[in-house]
Amino acid sequence: MGTDSFTLKEIIKGIKPVDEKWTEKANERTSQLVMPTRALGRLHDISEKICAICKTLKPSINHKAFLVMAADHGVVEEGVSAYPQEVTGEMIKTFLNGGAGISVLAGQVHADVFVVDMGIIADLDPVSLNGKDRLFIHKIARGTANLSRGPAMTREEADKAILTGFQLATDLFSKGLEMLGTGDMGIGNTTPSAAIGAVFTKTALEEMVGRGTGVNDDGFLKKQTAIQKGIEVNQPDSNDGLDVLSKLGGFEIGGIAGCILAGAYHGRPVVIDGFISTAGALVAHSLCPVVTDYLFAGHCSEETGHRAMLKYLGLEPILDLGMRLGEGSGGALAMGIIEGALKIFTDMLTFDQAGVSHKQ
Amino acid sequence: MGTDSFTLKEIIKGIKPVDEKWTEKANERTSQLVMPTRALGRLHDISEKICAICKTLKPSINHKAFLVMAADHGVVEEGVSAYPQEVTGEMIKTFLNGGAGISVLAGQVHADVFVVDMGIIADLDPVSLNGKDRLFIHKIARGTANLSRGPAMTREEADKAILTGFQLATDLFSKGLEMLGTGDMGIGNTTPSAAIGAVFTKTALEEMVGRGTGVNDDGFLKKQTAIQKGIEVNQPDSNDGLDVLSKLGGFEIGGIAGCILAGAYHGRPVVIDGFISTAGALVAHSLCPVVTDYLFAGHCSEETGHRAMLKYLGLEPILDLGMRLGEGSGGALAMGIIEGALKIFTDMLTFDQAGVSHKQ
Repeated sequence: MGTDSFTLKEIIKGIKPVDEKWTEKANERTSQLVMPTRALGRLHDISEKICAICKTLKPSINHKAFLVMAADHGVVEEGVSAYPQEVTGEMIKTFLNGGAGISVLAGQVHADVFVVDMGIIADLDPVSLNGKDRLFIHKIARGTANLSRGPAMTREEADKAILTGFQLATDLFSKGLEMLGTGDMGIGNTTPSAAIGAVFTKTALEEMVGRGTGVNDDGFLKKQTAIQKGIEVNQPDSNDGLDVLSKLGGFEIGGIAGCILAGAYHGRPVVIDGFISTAGALVAHSLCPVVTDYLFAGHCSEETGHRAMLKYLGLEPILDLGMRLGEGSGGALAMGIIEGALKIFTDMLTFDQAGVSHKQ
Repeated sequence: MGTDSFTLKEIIKGIKPVDEKWTEKANERTSQLVMPTRALGRLHDISEKICAICKTLKPSINHKAFLVMAADHGVVEEGVSAYPQEVTGEMIKTFLNGGAGISVLAGQVHADVFVVDMGIIADLDPVSLNGKDRLFIHKIARGTANLSRGPAMTREEADKAILTGFQLATDLFSKGLEMLGTGDMGIGNTTPSAAIGAVFTKTALEEMVGRGTGVNDDGFLKKQTAIQKGIEVNQPDSNDGLDVLSKLGGFEIGGIAGCILAGAYHGRPVVIDGFISTAGALVAHSLCPVVTDYLFAGHCSEETGHRAMLKYLGLEPILDLGMRLGEGSGGALAMGIIEGALKIFTDMLTFDQAGVSHKQ
């Protein structure tokens, strides 16, 4: 993998909106299926969006995978998380041995799970963890700097995080991947995500900051303070996605933004998960607003600000089940719905094929 | 099959609430799984409910099936539907040849589809339709009478409809079925369903009556009028489920109520679909309120009054995707979520198994 194959500018230039001609063609087929007009509601919107993305009325999404981006966060030293920082590395091991939430739910939809060390503190050895082909090491640094006291990373590191995600997703697409899910792991990462969400959507912190993995009242106050200080100290420019990412972090959020740009660049659907993935989507969207043409919001997280983020992006979540785990879990569950939507589109008979009488 | 094996009274007497001891045991296991406390939200509620229903921490829902109850409705002569009445029989053929919405979505979750002629006008031959083991003929009559002018059926027919559904579901459970979905087919059947919904939930007709398969303004007015007249003429007693069913119909709604009673009687989960299945649930609930312990609401339909019905039953829908097809389609899609929820419960590692650090 060479992350210097593309520059961010070239990637953005290469992304085009979907061709609405395909949406219309798909819409025409839906109208012929043996049911009252669009009686399966959003399932039709989903299948038609897939057709438009893939430029065909016979899209296939059999080959599915998750890129779970992992990183650590300097801001954890402010006491913003309920869990110790070692958990980031420990959970990666759990992803690899199949015992985590994303392992189970990705398994259900037959999606592969790849994990990327974008910048965790621990050193993990793919070979000894039986993850030679499933754990990729692209450590940008051992965690970001503390965003509440200065930039989380340099502009160059932000660029590198995005390009790494782009290149990893590109590699998977070139090997036949048809639908990509984004996931995350990183103790403390609802803190940078909330900061990013507040800056782009211009939502008040009270409506954006939640309790993440379940921080107590004291930690919650520290989290709000850390974010507020981080925004004041860094003065991120909401018109410059790279500036926001570099100042507020983290590496996994940049990696997710890169995955999303890759889906849009290569014309493949990407399913984002919850709060952290959507922070990545906000970064990608700020660089190239048209990426939402290629995005599905798997679910609406229980985490406080997620709905506002999705609304800002104009994405309607597929599921709303009070989930807040991350890892890609909500995206995996939603992939089952997307598959159902597409099967309806491809496998249902038309009125004429079925010999069923039309509307009076 | 003998529908006289059980009386309705015996069935109701045999239904017990789930034992909350199992919910607590399941809750205890959930709290040990390697994630923040109940981080997958409603997935935990779902899996714990399954445990309580099945009285085990290792429930299996591999064997799934839908009973799609079909019938015709005399009230169609009032001009309440957008489609001609022949469509009821034509759609049954489509269910059997695999080209309908329920065929596709049940196939996705590996659920069998059985269709029951509870009282359609047409005569269908299971053998010539290649449905010997999938189409069951239990025609109570060739459609109900017009509910807007008098009772849709006799009290004896209502009793028979429920017992037929109960016995068919019982037969499937005795052959190893682990989770049952209810479905419906019957041109005009949102009319009796809305009438039933209005009577039990005491909701105003404007908030209960929708456009079904997509009736135009003129038909919509006729539908509202037919329901209003039906309630005035029949004076159904909302404290007597059999009275409401017999006066407002239809046969498939009674069959669905029987399926639901069977799930509760035999301690098996039942997934209801949309507006018509929920009308069946209202009938079952009025006979035996504890049935909701055994019920999952697959989705919230786009049909106007569905949310009020679910609220009355205290059931939170799993999906909310603007669907309004019926047939069992929303239940089938939701079964994928229920399966995911159960896999999380059974297959995720605990903190200790995974060697992941606990909360600070």
